[in-house]
Amino acid sequence: MLLSKLCCERTKDAPGDAKIKSHILLSRAGFIKQVANGIYSMTMPCQRMSQRIQKIIREEMDACDGQEVLFPVVMPRELWETSGRYQSIGSEMVRFKDRSNHDMLLGMTHEEAAVHMANHIISSYTQLPMMIYQIQTKFRDEARARGGLIRVREFTMKDAYSFHTTKEDLEQYYMQIHKAYQNIFRRIGLKRFIDVKSDSGMMGGSVAHEFMLLTEVGEDSIVLCNHCDYRANMEVASGIIEKPIYKDEELKLVDTGADKTIEEVATRLKIDATQTAKAVVFAVKGDQDQVVIAFVRGDLEVNEAKLKKVLKKDVVAYDGGTSDSVVCGNIGPKGLDKSIIVVLDKSLEGTKGMVVGANKEGYHYTGFNFERDIENATFEDIAKTRAGDKCPICGGDLRIENGIEIGNIFQLGTKYTQSMGMQVTGPDGQLFNPIMGCYGIGVGRAIASIAQESNDDNGLILPITVAPWQVHICVLRQDDEVVASKANALYKDLESNKIDVLFDDRNCGAGIKFNDADLMGMPIRVVISPKSLQNDEVEITIRKTKESFKVKYEDAINEIKNLIAKLEEEYK
Amino acid sequence: MLLSKLCCERTKDAPGDAKIKSHILLSRAGFIKQVANGIYSMTMPCQRMSQRIQKIIREEMDACDGQEVLFPVVMPRELWETSGRYQSIGSEMVRFKDRSNHDMLLGMTHEEAAVHMANHIISSYTQLPMMIYQIQTKFRDEARARGGLIRVREFTMKDAYSFHTTKEDLEQYYMQIHKAYQNIFRRIGLKRFIDVKSDSGMMGGSVAHEFMLLTEVGEDSIVLCNHCDYRANMEVASGIIEKPIYKDEELKLVDTGADKTIEEVATRLKIDATQTAKAVVFAVKGDQDQVVIAFVRGDLEVNEAKLKKVLKKDVVAYDGGTSDSVVCGNIGPKGLDKSIIVVLDKSLEGTKGMVVGANKEGYHYTGFNFERDIENATFEDIAKTRAGDKCPICGGDLRIENGIEIGNIFQLGTKYTQSMGMQVTGPDGQLFNPIMGCYGIGVGRAIASIAQESNDDNGLILPITVAPWQVHICVLRQDDEVVASKANALYKDLESNKIDVLFDDRNCGAGIKFNDADLMGMPIRVVISPKSLQNDEVEITIRKTKESFKVKYEDAINEIKNLIAKLEEEYK
Repeated sequence: MLLSKLCCERTKDAPGDAKIKSHILLSRAGFIKQVANGIYSMTMPCQRMSQRIQKIIREEMDACDGQEVLFPVVMPRELWETSGRYQSIGSEMVRFKDRSNHDMLLGMTHEEAAVHMANHIISSYTQLPMMIYQIQTKFRDEARARGGLIRVREFTMKDAYSFHTTKEDLEQYYMQIHKAYQNIFRRIGLKRFIDVKSDSGMMGGSVAHEFMLLTEVGEDSIVLCNHCDYRANMEVASGIIEKPIYKDEELKLVDTGADKTIEEVATRLKIDATQTAKAVVFAVKGDQDQVVIAFVRGDLEVNEAKLKKVLKKDVVAYDGGTSDSVVCGNIGPKGLDKSIIVVLDKSLEGTKGMVVGANKEGYHYTGFNFERDIENATFEDIAKTRAGDKCPICGGDLRIENGIEIGNIFQLGTKYTQSMGMQVTGPDGQLFNPIMGCYGIGVGRAIASIAQESNDDNGLILPITVAPWQVHICVLRQDDEVVASKANALYKDLESNKIDVLFDDRNCGAGIKFNDADLMGMPIRVVISPKSLQNDEVEITIRKTKESFKVKYEDAINEIKNLIAKLEEEYK
Repeated sequence: MLLSKLCCERTKDAPGDAKIKSHILLSRAGFIKQVANGIYSMTMPCQRMSQRIQKIIREEMDACDGQEVLFPVVMPRELWETSGRYQSIGSEMVRFKDRSNHDMLLGMTHEEAAVHMANHIISSYTQLPMMIYQIQTKFRDEARARGGLIRVREFTMKDAYSFHTTKEDLEQYYMQIHKAYQNIFRRIGLKRFIDVKSDSGMMGGSVAHEFMLLTEVGEDSIVLCNHCDYRANMEVASGIIEKPIYKDEELKLVDTGADKTIEEVATRLKIDATQTAKAVVFAVKGDQDQVVIAFVRGDLEVNEAKLKKVLKKDVVAYDGGTSDSVVCGNIGPKGLDKSIIVVLDKSLEGTKGMVVGANKEGYHYTGFNFERDIENATFEDIAKTRAGDKCPICGGDLRIENGIEIGNIFQLGTKYTQSMGMQVTGPDGQLFNPIMGCYGIGVGRAIASIAQESNDDNGLILPITVAPWQVHICVLRQDDEVVASKANALYKDLESNKIDVLFDDRNCGAGIKFNDADLMGMPIRVVISPKSLQNDEVEITIRKTKESFKVKYEDAINEIKNLIAKLEEEYK
């Protein structure tokens, strides 16, 4: 490709809203162009990078016996009603009426479509396991699109759906996909990625993992053990906390005046926050009259994802509702209205001598003992894990890092096959609902992740496995006929050797060319200049290591071939 | 691929609404599955076929120096307002509000997005010509989705946009794309395709061609000359008609009673329909008060597309409106209300002694002479061409055939670059609006066209260049260990030779296997049976010719390789 003709503009400045490296560099290198909030066009270099990533994904999915199919972007309401998700998913799903006034939607995931395809086709367990996947455009109306390709509304995604006879078969296959995902991320050049246990969220199902790129700009918090392999998304992470033992005392109503917060009450009573219980009030989504109060130790926070899982219900902030029995700032577990759902965190289990609200304006109890003062108290894990808490596996220190989700895998179970009535004949002749798994990777997110992780002050550093072009030729003095013709001959030779080349044939200064080459980040730069040709040489520079060396013009093709092979080694 | 695991169900019967061969066979072979009206999922064989077609399209577009990019499916209203198409396109464009209440739309074409990308990036004529293309999902809310993949609402399309400095450059490039399209359709195996001049419709611009597959199930009418190369879409076709000469007489008002139609009036007056003029009443779209009356000779019909082009306005049926001056059944060109727009067809030019309505209930004129009786009469070509009319180029007989549009190319001009303010510095230092062309091919439509053209009573006959698998192995007596292992070894050997194989490893009868192989239509069938192995042979059958021959088992790989090369020859 001739750079002079490439529809891709390099700029010195990034758009004003670009705050993170990948957004800045992909914009400055001209790879992406914003069309609307969270919606981008991709120019040729970006689309080529996308296709290289897709090729690697396809190879790994095919190696897992995946069958590539294509589901529609636009689906009818009826299909999503069978699973109940037409109702349960909120405004992140685009809904519209078609010209015949039918309710339609834009797919953000394709479990329903996958079951629709496999249903009736798969009739016997002998056809299982079976996996179908697609690579296709999806739309999710994100409230907080940000960071260029990091969090967009429209995106290209690989989504795969597997069907199994037994849970054991799903588990074995899940591990196979798990390995394929590790291969994919390694092959596309990501370094700091890990898999973490996660919440299955709107997908349903039990076991789920996210693949995360660890990066300070990530929006997800990941809990990792400094000593063992334990790691989990904050949403599901558990930590063990130290529990100071306080004296078992008699329950006593004390006047705490206008002091409401944990800090105020602790200061007034001269106690540590760990001796208090904090109440956080929610309402069940869609029913503000159904109040939920979660209690955690005063120094902890409630983890909403864990709370929802315990409740098996979605919760939202409590808006004050109609209940008079919620005395904000003085809420406690004793004497609450019976209609309120109360959840106690594990951090309160076995505690004594605690301070809790008395459900009476201006009063708290001291000497509270949960097991003694509440009938049949049960405790659930609903607190947010903190750095420094102890690993639930080995007791080591936990730390928290930020991460970007780059892929996810779910053991779905029979949620969709059951609700959509997909039945298959088993070995015993009985009908059963196949057990499903689903597996996603966002291609644009992968591009952003590579850009985020692999760059320097001068620009992108693209791994050879996904770079749009492997070689970037800079010809200095394009106006010198001999130099230009030598450069052009090398360009053509490389291309006929099936090496992808971006050829900067512009008639401009070396500085501009080198800056653009660094910014765009192709792995191998070749410089041809009047000076180098005096010794019948060209100069080769490796973008990543900045290593530079000269080779004879006539050896250039072979040297570059060898260098490509060497660079590729790293990602195998 | 093992057929036993393939998520694709062959059936004896097609869906009830499947009337045409391609719909019936793609459904019966399990290639497509309907999700909603005009919306389909594609199973693995269909998706592979789609990808092979896409690969050929990419090769040809890249050979025209095309740069593959990706535009978004969802676009904001503002982008389409710049070109005026947000308003001008009707309910075939899906519009919806996003969660922030912004007006969004689903792309059915991407001229605006292409200009948005190229604008500012292309700043000098030295960067031109430049062509960007994408292969991507589009949605057009067709009122009459039908025929399986023939006319759908959601489809995968290659759309390309070129930018030029001069009209000559566009014309030269247009011819290059024209040739590339011929290459594409030949290479994917279509036989009866032609290019025809067409109307540029909602795209704007002047010169346009459609590529048509000639087939009786086509919805488009194409006018072709039996003697020369003339061919055009009915919308723009011109034919020369014979004009009988009638006696020049005096204008006379005659009582025609309740006779209103051409047939009734001609019968009453004992004249031929060619001696009458027919009035067809329209209104300007959006303004029923603006009446348009088109006159054609009594034996002809009005071609609305041509009429719109003459008027440079869209017209719709007249609903009776508020005008009292339109006397239906007695409308004539003389004495019409001045506010009415009148268009006279060329068929009326130079005629004498005609019978026309008198704009008076129950009366017609005889002896009407358009040039004499209407002031400054001008004539336009607005009549539908008929089979038997004469070719405007050579005078030969015209015939009409049905066709399916499989691609289109447009010389757009500066409609979009002007309206969107894209300016580039020319050789003279002056800014100018680049001249555009655009070029589309529907991938799903191509699949349907191949299926429509290439089949027999037993099923699909897929060209080797696009077949999902080149070879279909049928093993008879899968339960015989020796046979099964020999078949499996051949399957593996073929795959390691990079030949794509569908392996029917099911334990079922030969009849079922042969029927499925015929229905699915892979080009080469290989049968391995206990009988053939007695002579250490396998049987090879060419799907298209039904030619069958035996080869030694150990020669099979080479024989198949040679056969593939031979079959591929045909499409080069």
